[in-house]
Amino acid sequence: MKLNYPASVKIVEVGPRDGLQNEKQLINIADKLRLIDELAQSGLTFIEAGSFVSPKWVPQMADSADIFRQLIRHPEVTYSALTPNLQGYANACLADADEVAIFGAASESFSQKNINCSISESLQRFEPVLEQAKKDKKPVRGYISCVLGCPYEGEVSPQKVAEVAKQLLDMGCYEISLGDTIGVGTPYKSQKMLETVQKVIPNNKIAVHFHDTYGQALANILVALQQGINIVDSAVAGLGGCPYAKGASGNVATEDVIFMLNGMGIETGVDLNKLVLAGQNIMQALGRTSTSKVANAMLN
Amino acid sequence: MKLNYPASVKIVEVGPRDGLQNEKQLINIADKLRLIDELAQSGLTFIEAGSFVSPKWVPQMADSADIFRQLIRHPEVTYSALTPNLQGYANACLADADEVAIFGAASESFSQKNINCSISESLQRFEPVLEQAKKDKKPVRGYISCVLGCPYEGEVSPQKVAEVAKQLLDMGCYEISLGDTIGVGTPYKSQKMLETVQKVIPNNKIAVHFHDTYGQALANILVALQQGINIVDSAVAGLGGCPYAKGASGNVATEDVIFMLNGMGIETGVDLNKLVLAGQNIMQALGRTSTSKVANAMLN
Repeated sequence: MKLNYPASVKIVEVGPRDGLQNEKQLINIADKLRLIDELAQSGLTFIEAGSFVSPKWVPQMADSADIFRQLIRHPEVTYSALTPNLQGYANACLADADEVAIFGAASESFSQKNINCSISESLQRFEPVLEQAKKDKKPVRGYISCVLGCPYEGEVSPQKVAEVAKQLLDMGCYEISLGDTIGVGTPYKSQKMLETVQKVIPNNKIAVHFHDTYGQALANILVALQQGINIVDSAVAGLGGCPYAKGASGNVATEDVIFMLNGMGIETGVDLNKLVLAGQNIMQALGRTSTSKVANAMLN
Repeated sequence: MKLNYPASVKIVEVGPRDGLQNEKQLINIADKLRLIDELAQSGLTFIEAGSFVSPKWVPQMADSADIFRQLIRHPEVTYSALTPNLQGYANACLADADEVAIFGAASESFSQKNINCSISESLQRFEPVLEQAKKDKKPVRGYISCVLGCPYEGEVSPQKVAEVAKQLLDMGCYEISLGDTIGVGTPYKSQKMLETVQKVIPNNKIAVHFHDTYGQALANILVALQQGINIVDSAVAGLGGCPYAKGASGNVATEDVIFMLNGMGIETGVDLNKLVLAGQNIMQALGRTSTSKVANAMLN
């Protein structure tokens, strides 16, 4: 059977934001800055470094403005920030974030329980952000959560994912990251969902964002590669956890993704050894073991 | 893209043998018998229950004869045993093992260091076992180790794997299990290796046996399914460890394989909840945490 794989993959490293935001224990800014710098030194060129949300909601991200001001900028790296509203967007710009990201859900129940409004209301709220970003020529990335299942309503229709993805694209997002927030996706469903989205959005604007809660992330990423997608979100050391399954794995570990891509001859520009050390250092700061199997095997 | 997947998959559960044999701490026979029985109750129909090797080499398997004599036989389950030589084979028959298994390597260095002879010498040594098994109408399964890499010589040629697989088949093995002993395989290499083996052996005689040392097992299994293979070795709770990477993951966890197959609508006959409990019980006996992400997510 002839399977085509992309020659290169862009990794979007979400560890410092999507990963660390789930950590209860406040991490000091020096450890965060070290993490971000070591990730850049490993060759990663896109790092989601913080979130300009209310510190009441996400205390771990309260220092995002300081993070952006203090981080050592590597010229080849894009440092992005999550911005939930115009205020967050303004703060992200003040702190000189290279890009911002907004988010919607593919599940109505999740949208209601998570941000207290319907999906379409949530998208409307982002319109001022996108308008301003357009004026500022600031690129905006769009996230969609629950693309393969919802903790409240179970199955999520691929059609709904495609619809929200198209809306975010039409609103001005340059790239849509499809998130399996609770990690329940399996390869065949991932393929069907991607095929549905690919009908309305070109491949080069689709990213996949898998959580490894049930160990399925690499198999799902493989399917995405086979579908011609070559933008993958991941978090060093598998940072992130899952608020819906305590003690479970979080984002797919960047180390595990890189190991797979290296073995397949797919270029990423990332030095796996340096990446493993970056993961080791942040896990030492957290006092926990990495959920990256690659890191655990390489360090033993 | 049209991908075909098999309608059903046969799981070969290797936890009680390939898994437990790597445990330093001796496990009492009651815990082993309970494990085997709970695996059968979960719906697994093929369980590798022991190994008739010298207790000097593998102390953990010294009680295999007692295991086979004491286990509660479920009529639909095949209980198999690893037999390194004619003496082991005779003991396995005395203990009424339904099937036996022999093993070779695809790497000369591994064969030399592991069993102190060349690959072809190792296969010759199994000839008397296969001759006797033929007379006894006892099915013999063949394992090949290091099919995607060797801890001593690195790369292993797919041609060598195909050659050893063909030899084992010609000697009388009814099925060949291709083992990525050190878990270094990635999907593209797995595909190439399988395609090479498939040129000399029919699909229904090929099994895949992946270790999850670097987290690649499910992605590799996915590729095997796409290649039309539907026999998968795995170990409950990811038992096994890796003697070449201390602290690393062992066999791919049966729970994780079943979760993926369930999500893809591929029939296995296994009850995932019962399987997770079987894994939980043996891990409690071992005093360790499972390496199955599915088990950890479901139990939290």
